[in-house]
Amino acid sequence: MQEIGIGLVGGGYMGKAHAVAYAAVGAVFNTSLRPRLEMVTASSPESSERYRAAFGFARAADDWQTLVADPKVEAVVIASPQATHRQISETAFALGKPVFCEKPLGASVADAQAMVAAAESAGLPNMVGFNYIRTPATQFVRQLLTDGAIGDLTWFRGEHTEDFLADPAIPANWRCHGRANGCMGDLAPHMVNCALALMGDITELSARVETLHPVRPGADGPTPVDNDDHGQMMVRFASGVMGHLYFSRAATGRKMGYAYEIHGTKGAVRFDQEDQNAVWLYRADGPDAQRGFTKILTGPAHPDYLPFCQGPGHGTGYQDQIIIEARDFLHAIHSGQPVWPTFRDGLAVAQVIETAFATATDGRWHSVPLG
Amino acid sequence: MQEIGIGLVGGGYMGKAHAVAYAAVGAVFNTSLRPRLEMVTASSPESSERYRAAFGFARAADDWQTLVADPKVEAVVIASPQATHRQISETAFALGKPVFCEKPLGASVADAQAMVAAAESAGLPNMVGFNYIRTPATQFVRQLLTDGAIGDLTWFRGEHTEDFLADPAIPANWRCHGRANGCMGDLAPHMVNCALALMGDITELSARVETLHPVRPGADGPTPVDNDDHGQMMVRFASGVMGHLYFSRAATGRKMGYAYEIHGTKGAVRFDQEDQNAVWLYRADGPDAQRGFTKILTGPAHPDYLPFCQGPGHGTGYQDQIIIEARDFLHAIHSGQPVWPTFRDGLAVAQVIETAFATATDGRWHSVPLG
Amino acid sequence: MQEIGIGLVGGGYMGKAHAVAYAAVGAVFNTSLRPRLEMVTASSPESSERYRAAFGFARAADDWQTLVADPKVEAVVIASPQATHRQISETAFALGKPVFCEKPLGASVADAQAMVAAAESAGLPNMVGFNYIRTPATQFVRQLLTDGAIGDLTWFRGEHTEDFLADPAIPANWRCHGRANGCMGDLAPHMVNCALALMGDITELSARVETLHPVRPGADGPTPVDNDDHGQMMVRFASGVMGHLYFSRAATGRKMGYAYEIHGTKGAVRFDQEDQNAVWLYRADGPDAQRGFTKILTGPAHPDYLPFCQGPGHGTGYQDQIIIEARDFLHAIHSGQPVWPTFRDGLAVAQVIETAFATATDGRWHSVPLG
Amino acid sequence: MQEIGIGLVGGGYMGKAHAVAYAAVGAVFNTSLRPRLEMVTASSPESSERYRAAFGFARAADDWQTLVADPKVEAVVIASPQATHRQISETAFALGKPVFCEKPLGASVADAQAMVAAAESAGLPNMVGFNYIRTPATQFVRQLLTDGAIGDLTWFRGEHTEDFLADPAIPANWRCHGRANGCMGDLAPHMVNCALALMGDITELSARVETLHPVRPGADGPTPVDNDDHGQMMVRFASGVMGHLYFSRAATGRKMGYAYEIHGTKGAVRFDQEDQNAVWLYRADGPDAQRGFTKILTGPAHPDYLPFCQGPGHGTGYQDQIIIEARDFLHAIHSGQPVWPTFRDGLAVAQVIETAFATATDGRWHSVPLG
Ligand SMILES: NC(=O)C1=CN([C@@H]2O[C@H](COP(=O)(O)OP(=O)(O)OC[C@H]3O[C@@H](n4cnc5c(N)ncnc54)[C@H](O)[C@@H]3O)[C@@H](O)[C@H]2O)C=CC1
Ligand SMILES: NC(=O)C1=CN([C@@H]2O[C@H](COP(=O)(O)OP(=O)(O)OC[C@H]3O[C@@H](n4cnc5c(N)ncnc54)[C@H](O)[C@@H]3O)[C@@H](O)[C@H]2O)C=CC1
Ligand SMILES: NC(=O)C1=CN([C@@H]2O[C@H](COP(=O)(O)OP(=O)(O)OC[C@H]3O[C@@H](n4cnc5c(N)ncnc54)[C@H](O)[C@@H]3O)[C@@H](O)[C@H]2O)C=CC1
Ligand SMILES: NC(=O)C1=CN([C@@H]2O[C@H](COP(=O)(O)OP(=O)(O)OC[C@H]3O[C@@H](n4cnc5c(N)ncnc54)[C@H](O)[C@@H]3O)[C@@H](O)[C@H]2O)C=CC1
Repeated sequence: MQEIGIGLVGGGYMGKAHAVAYAAVGAVFNTSLRPRLEMVTASSPESSERYRAAFGFARAADDWQTLVADPKVEAVVIASPQATHRQISETAFALGKPVFCEKPLGASVADAQAMVAAAESAGLPNMVGFNYIRTPATQFVRQLLTDGAIGDLTWFRGEHTEDFLADPAIPANWRCHGRANGCMGDLAPHMVNCALALMGDITELSARVETLHPVRPGADGPTPVDNDDHGQMMVRFASGVMGHLYFSRAATGRKMGYAYEIHGTKGAVRFDQEDQNAVWLYRADGPDAQRGFTKILTGPAHPDYLPFCQGPGHGTGYQDQIIIEARDFLHAIHSGQPVWPTFRDGLAVAQVIETAFATATDGRWHSVPLG
Repeated sequence: MQEIGIGLVGGGYMGKAHAVAYAAVGAVFNTSLRPRLEMVTASSPESSERYRAAFGFARAADDWQTLVADPKVEAVVIASPQATHRQISETAFALGKPVFCEKPLGASVADAQAMVAAAESAGLPNMVGFNYIRTPATQFVRQLLTDGAIGDLTWFRGEHTEDFLADPAIPANWRCHGRANGCMGDLAPHMVNCALALMGDITELSARVETLHPVRPGADGPTPVDNDDHGQMMVRFASGVMGHLYFSRAATGRKMGYAYEIHGTKGAVRFDQEDQNAVWLYRADGPDAQRGFTKILTGPAHPDYLPFCQGPGHGTGYQDQIIIEARDFLHAIHSGQPVWPTFRDGLAVAQVIETAFATATDGRWHSVPLG
Repeated sequence: MQEIGIGLVGGGYMGKAHAVAYAAVGAVFNTSLRPRLEMVTASSPESSERYRAAFGFARAADDWQTLVADPKVEAVVIASPQATHRQISETAFALGKPVFCEKPLGASVADAQAMVAAAESAGLPNMVGFNYIRTPATQFVRQLLTDGAIGDLTWFRGEHTEDFLADPAIPANWRCHGRANGCMGDLAPHMVNCALALMGDITELSARVETLHPVRPGADGPTPVDNDDHGQMMVRFASGVMGHLYFSRAATGRKMGYAYEIHGTKGAVRFDQEDQNAVWLYRADGPDAQRGFTKILTGPAHPDYLPFCQGPGHGTGYQDQIIIEARDFLHAIHSGQPVWPTFRDGLAVAQVIETAFATATDGRWHSVPLG
Repeated sequence: MQEIGIGLVGGGYMGKAHAVAYAAVGAVFNTSLRPRLEMVTASSPESSERYRAAFGFARAADDWQTLVADPKVEAVVIASPQATHRQISETAFALGKPVFCEKPLGASVADAQAMVAAAESAGLPNMVGFNYIRTPATQFVRQLLTDGAIGDLTWFRGEHTEDFLADPAIPANWRCHGRANGCMGDLAPHMVNCALALMGDITELSARVETLHPVRPGADGPTPVDNDDHGQMMVRFASGVMGHLYFSRAATGRKMGYAYEIHGTKGAVRFDQEDQNAVWLYRADGPDAQRGFTKILTGPAHPDYLPFCQGPGHGTGYQDQIIIEARDFLHAIHSGQPVWPTFRDGLAVAQVIETAFATATDGRWHSVPLG
């Protein structure tokens, strides 16, 4: 059994999720390459050490530079804020180390482009953390579409909606500042990635993006919010199919509204991450009296379910997506084959979002740059 | 008990629905004015007579002119194709008779404008058949919004989706020809009316409208389809709130997809006509651990439910909406007060749709003419 | 077109529903026999006259004896309390008039037996008001079972649950007194009828019946409740299949919990009257990955739907069930053929309930008398 | 950080789940006691070694005796068939080692009694693997009931239904032989445990248990099935509340039908493991027009959710339940405090099931022995 030393940057929400994933992934997937929780770092030596102890890493590093340079760190997982993604990645690639980077790919299109360049010129494994596309349910939907189960596609509607800033009385925090932390910068990438994964490239779009609550309470009185609360776009895919996307961090009542519906000439699919173990499939065949949407519960017959449980309908959860992701990153390293979504896929997402901001300004349709 | 003679034009899908409604409405609502099924007409003397017998009207007329002019016909209900709406209305108003007209209000904006002018200069009761807005559920939602139950509104998403032309193998029929019979002309009005009713005027919008299947089989070989299969619009309401509307007659799997969701700062509402007796309400109050969407079943506590049934959750259906509509038209006549939605409301809907076509051509945002 | 004079006894909850039904049924179903709202009566001359005016009957009778004896009353619809069912039916049959009687069939098994005897010796049309079995959805389920769509049946679970007496603070009313007004007497018959209709005879059962709140507030202080709040039974059908039934008027949150699920060797069906336009069907065929319960919306492809609406998913409601019932009673009269459920079917229901009380006393399984 | 060496018996369905759980639990819960995957064993040296490599254990043992006796094995997790539970437990306790045992507790009541005796006389930590009771959702329901959120309880309905033996064409396998492997022996324990956990002791019951398909295809032709396919029981809890339980391995369409509904005087709760991240709560307060079942998505406000994810609605899955269980077993060992459910709770479950078989034979109500 071959081992690989993992270096993790960040020990917050996603840092912990990746730590658990690398602890569990070997047993779940019987991977050829076995991760060793080698080193973790965060924003201070104290927090780095705290995370080391909590997550069970062998060592803590005082800063990411030390971690990336450590010889026993053979692969780097970045789970720190977007502004740090680029520099850490570039450094890691320069040292010949594969990089897994949380979404979004950097804080801007420029970051993303630089990161793709670094990854591709280094010729090293690189992946972006679009975990939701890895549920057994959405992997299954991808298969259905590829297999033509619902015929020729005619419409896509996607959303990623949550409500953590729905109440205008919530004080301003770091999420209220900087484009990369706004709704389009932070929430939209997951569903844009999903749209691209299921439907293919977006070639043109027209969007509206806005701040619902431009001022929020703050420690020193009313504080301006300088990024967006929600945004929508009408899109055209390369296939010619039309669609719509909506993103909101102010969608009262929505907790994990990563949801889509897709129409085809012979069927339709619906999915909502709030019930992540169900896919709703309509097939336009059989007698009219028996047609309807079938609620399919995920199970061993669906991609990447069986390693988690032998029983159908028993369900996987959020953490399991991150474990699947870890398996894929290990596989990319072990096989030397890029595993989707790579940094290039992360860049495509960034371009769609950048274009949305542009169209929101002039109210016209724009085409989306390819890379 | 005062009686009024009803003259019905059309005995098809909606003609029958109105015939049943006028037969039942007195007993359901104990109306002050009692309808007498006086006369019916359709496209031929034979069909007129057939409908008379089937529906229980006293007499059949050979054509609508005869019906409208008949002295015992004291109010006219139009349930014939859009192209006939204008002339019948104008004639009826000229003879001093109140008119209920099925949606859409005529076959074009010009028709709608002429019909509003005729109604208003005659000073007679006039109503348009937007029945879905009259379910106990959607009436209740209107109340909730008015009462501020979900706070300040921040987002509206509406759709009217069905699948009767989803399969490209369905031969071309009359629905495939003429803008008024396309998806935007025929299906969109209901949901546009709903959006206006719940959210207020739409002031500007940007749309895309398209024909998915431009050629269909026909009796004489491949036949071109000259109207649209689906369309979407991003809208801005007069209140400043942003929204999105989608309409499709090719939405495989959707049978009665008249559905909307509305976000507010303090709550949210969801509704889908396919389960017309349920309103989903989220209120951002109480402990976090107990928050969620509440599935409220309609019952005696909701508008216009009790006359149909004393038991909550027992449910009303499609036909009941038409009975409520009949009650309202009788009330408009009896009270001399206009009952919403009037022809003017029908015109507002037509203007939104007309604007959608315009923006679909140039890809920009347009403002919507007010009347 | 042949007419028939309808005499209605009772103008409350169900009396009104039948009045509306007879006003509408001709137009809905284009019936050969057309009902004339001839005469109505209630518990006093004043209320009789009030109902006459409200519902649009030609005349009011001071009492049911007058109504039943009136020569222009050619068929009798009984919608008065259970204690009155027997005498009115017997009198009507003696005068040669067909009778439709609301459920349950009288106030006791003895009543039901006498009523069956009267109906059968008169050889006249007779029907019991089990309206829920007449929804397009449940009619469709019956077809599915008959067609073997879910294979050999293996399990039936049914319930009729509501919550109108869930709160112990609700004062005692007439429903709290007399076995026929308890949960088993009043609510259970609908679902017992459904079980018999879908699964065949119940041959043996073991039940528990109980009063949850034996004392309630009353005008003169605490008042004893002398009938049951809920009850359950394990049953065995003649086919050998095992099942369970539950009934409650104290099922907090349940408004119209007439619900069942049925397992078969090749599929399963689920239905809940709170969403009366949906049938959930599982078929154990096709690839595992695509199996699940299909939510079928009722539409023109299902029994008795089309006359109410041409559009699938547009939905029927409570009142429509009573209209279907009226069509069936008119058909029974016109054709001279008994239409299910007859009084004999009402008796079978009464026997099951009587047996439940017996087993609840001694805690053993009893067989159910056949008639 | 203190370590403890874990010895795992069995590497199948549950063996793997526990292996993953002990690999992940430290990072997830930052446990005081950190498990070391010390040793695993299965039915042969070869499979033991295979599981060792796959799951990442330090060593494999040739048989369970070796494993239990190994000095570096400080706690034993039993995930082998029911017939092995007793002997392994007794041996482990005799050697002073804490034991976690998969459900059911042995293959018979006698086994369970002996195991309780061994555990209690040794005074060592002991737990049974009723994992479903540990979801954030069901833990939350327990809290709700304890807090009186739905008032005084009046009814409990529970089921555990799956369909792995629904098709009579499925050949006989080991599950078709031996009472402990039948539906009552194998599936029922989870839901009986749930009923006891939520409602308290069951004091009496009346059941029916049966084999739907007494003969199945086998390698050597038709093979008799000697255990049960489904069973039901009417129960009485110590509180006086009445309930019903149903269990089936032939419930076509059901994949993980661990579901219950509970009525109280002030509310109701519904749960279905097939959507394990949602609890449906009805509260009989507020205006009638706004009452209904609220679909609450689990999140950080619910028990044991936050360690898996910071976002509400993001969801936990099957594997996460086993991780929670591992945390509890570690806690029991570390604190020296018994953690529910202990072996004694496992025995209570066994007694209910044993009583069900007895009542199924004579058709009467029996009281349930207490231990
Ligand atoms: N895939 C997904 O579902 C999600 C992805 N994310 C992404 O994950 C990344 C991290 O977000 P969260 O975990 O939510 O943030 P967080 O605030 O919970 O954690 C950030 C971590 O990064 C560390 N950090 C900050 N600056 C650092 C530096 N210069 N050097 C080393 N460590 C540093 C902090 O100490 C902290 O441990 C972001 O890019 C975010 O967009 C976040 C949430 C969900
Ligand atoms: N509110 C709603 O939910 C719906 C509204 N509609 C609207 O109702 C109207 C009628 O549509 P349907 O009933 O579906 O059509 P249909 O084709 O079923 O019936 C049309 C009726 O009009 C009669 N007719 C046609 N030309 C006539 C003429 N010159 N004079 C007199 N009668 C004439 C026909 O004989 C037929 O009886 C349309 O405006 C349509 O947009 C239609 C369906 C649903
Ligand atoms: N099929 C269904 O879904 C339902 C059936 N029912 C059944 O319908 C029947 C009536 O119940 P409701 O309408 O709920 O009661 P209700 O109390 O609303 O109405 C009863 C009516 O009977 C009249 N009445 C009472 N005694 C009379 C007498 N001696 N002679 C003439 N009229 C008399 C009353 O004046 C009143 O108009 C009952 O048998 C009940 O079980 C009731 C509700 C629902
Ligand atoms: N909590 C839950 O949800 C579930 C619990 N279970 C319970 O877990 C236990 C194991 O069941 P599964 O994992 O489904 O069975 P399985 O057949 O998948 O695995 C059983 C394992 O035990 C091993 N084994 C058999 N005899 C042995 C022996 N004498 N010594 C050592 N190892 C031996 C086998 O080699 C195999 O690795 C059973 O008691 C079962 O009731 C099973 C499934 C689900």
